[in-house]
Amino acid sequence: MYSIGVDLGGTKILTGVLDEQGTLQHTLELPTMAADGPDAVIRRMRDTIDRMLDRVGRANVIGIGIGAPGPLNPHTGMVLGPPNLPGWDQIPLRDELHEVYGLPVYLENDANAAAVAEHRFGAGQGSLQMVYITVSTGIGGGVVIDGQVRQGAAGGFAEIGHMIVDPDGARCNCGNRGCLEAVASGTAIARMASEAFGRALTAEQVAELAMRGDNKAQQVLDTAFYYLGIGLVNIVNLYDPDLIVIGGGVARIGQPLFAALLQALGSNYFRRSYGMDVPIVPAQLGAKAGVIGAAALPWLAREQA
Amino acid sequence: MYSIGVDLGGTKILTGVLDEQGTLQHTLELPTMAADGPDAVIRRMRDTIDRMLDRVGRANVIGIGIGAPGPLNPHTGMVLGPPNLPGWDQIPLRDELHEVYGLPVYLENDANAAAVAEHRFGAGQGSLQMVYITVSTGIGGGVVIDGQVRQGAAGGFAEIGHMIVDPDGARCNCGNRGCLEAVASGTAIARMASEAFGRALTAEQVAELAMRGDNKAQQVLDTAFYYLGIGLVNIVNLYDPDLIVIGGGVARIGQPLFAALLQALGSNYFRRSYGMDVPIVPAQLGAKAGVIGAAALPWLAREQA
Repeated sequence: MYSIGVDLGGTKILTGVLDEQGTLQHTLELPTMAADGPDAVIRRMRDTIDRMLDRVGRANVIGIGIGAPGPLNPHTGMVLGPPNLPGWDQIPLRDELHEVYGLPVYLENDANAAAVAEHRFGAGQGSLQMVYITVSTGIGGGVVIDGQVRQGAAGGFAEIGHMIVDPDGARCNCGNRGCLEAVASGTAIARMASEAFGRALTAEQVAELAMRGDNKAQQVLDTAFYYLGIGLVNIVNLYDPDLIVIGGGVARIGQPLFAALLQALGSNYFRRSYGMDVPIVPAQLGAKAGVIGAAALPWLAREQA
Repeated sequence: MYSIGVDLGGTKILTGVLDEQGTLQHTLELPTMAADGPDAVIRRMRDTIDRMLDRVGRANVIGIGIGAPGPLNPHTGMVLGPPNLPGWDQIPLRDELHEVYGLPVYLENDANAAAVAEHRFGAGQGSLQMVYITVSTGIGGGVVIDGQVRQGAAGGFAEIGHMIVDPDGARCNCGNRGCLEAVASGTAIARMASEAFGRALTAEQVAELAMRGDNKAQQVLDTAFYYLGIGLVNIVNLYDPDLIVIGGGVARIGQPLFAALLQALGSNYFRRSYGMDVPIVPAQLGAKAGVIGAAALPWLAREQA
């Protein structure tokens, strides 16, 4: 038996078929073309799902899981109005797809889906209290406690990117100041670098410059790492995890990032008091975590039934 | 049948007997005299427990619950080294008391115990995702999800007072800067007022002065409320609660505090996006929440068994 997972992003739709052991059997990627609006995007999603159903046979599919950008409500299956999906406003995505396919459909925040994947098949296996953080153009998170990803009252559990870490910090898209996402994401690194260098640079280019010894680039990274460190201290004090998994593009900066985060955690009162050594490890599933986690949702639901 | 609860604080020990309906039948308060060290303090705790056992009859008691200051580990029953209990370092309090009395003994962080009490018998009844915050000389918290107070990997879940809300803020006892407790607790209010007025003032006196129209006092409160507001926005984005219960001495400032917190929450992206209206309500059990919650622990354990 198989499940189908869809990772719906602002720039691409990645759909795949997963078996019960967590092996991704087939994948298909289409551009989201988000500007076309929800109807066209959902049509493209359905194209990818149709192709997967043809491939493995509808009778062999137990259900469909969708990972989508927040805010969304997993309890009602509604996509509420993600900033990077223009025109989406209270779209009952889960029920629409269920009506089309007659299969169980599950909707989950994309970061939560990736957290599920890392916990079940990746870096988080065996953890009883895992925090997953993705640091990419944005910052998201998911918390898996006793094998269950926590959703909160309305699907907003662990919106880690919107934790305020500096009330005097840069303005966030959400309207608040100094959200972790506004001061430590790839976008924030690029913004700080553009200010420092007077020209447009990507986070990747900043990391490369820093690696080659450029001081200005290093300072930009240090600022972002400093805020990520504060975020991690807060995560430890608020969730008391036994493991922290870090994914997303910025995590690929690698050793210097993890060293900075471990140092920040070393300053944490509770960690010191408990003599705890909370491991911080890189995610293992890379860019596939979202689609694997989405496809894992039907399997999880089956186990919990 | 009855349970015995002990609220072990830095200044007093409050012990009581609870019936299954949550009615506190008898209480006894002794000064902690913490400076005498753990052996003397445990002796005094045992005196209060002995008196309660005599009162209701040992055969009628199902167990003993202890609420104590963190850091402690509820899984191992160890008190690790609370700043306001000098000399306590890795004390196996749960096992010591179990050995003496032969009854089941449960150890829980004092804020978690109060959270249990408010959820079961107070302002949090019926909530599926409750965050309890106590704002007093310190700031603590407890999160009750699906009826269970979350303990985390090592007993450090929801150490809300040590969430960093301003990395340039005042130094905290824990060593970090700008912890919520360092900038918004009763102690922080008193410290800011002493600086503003050039003489020692308690948080209560500051609140009284502000009520009578004193601008300087109002500014001190506004600063503390501002940081509490940031803390609340973070709590909503991290725990996505359906209810926030606020207890502790500072909560007695009442309406101006709750108005400021509701205003801060109104600025929260996810709350706005979801159209959520997270109620913020005052705790109902006052200074008895700790002892009631401690005494509730044996009942909870019995239900979950």
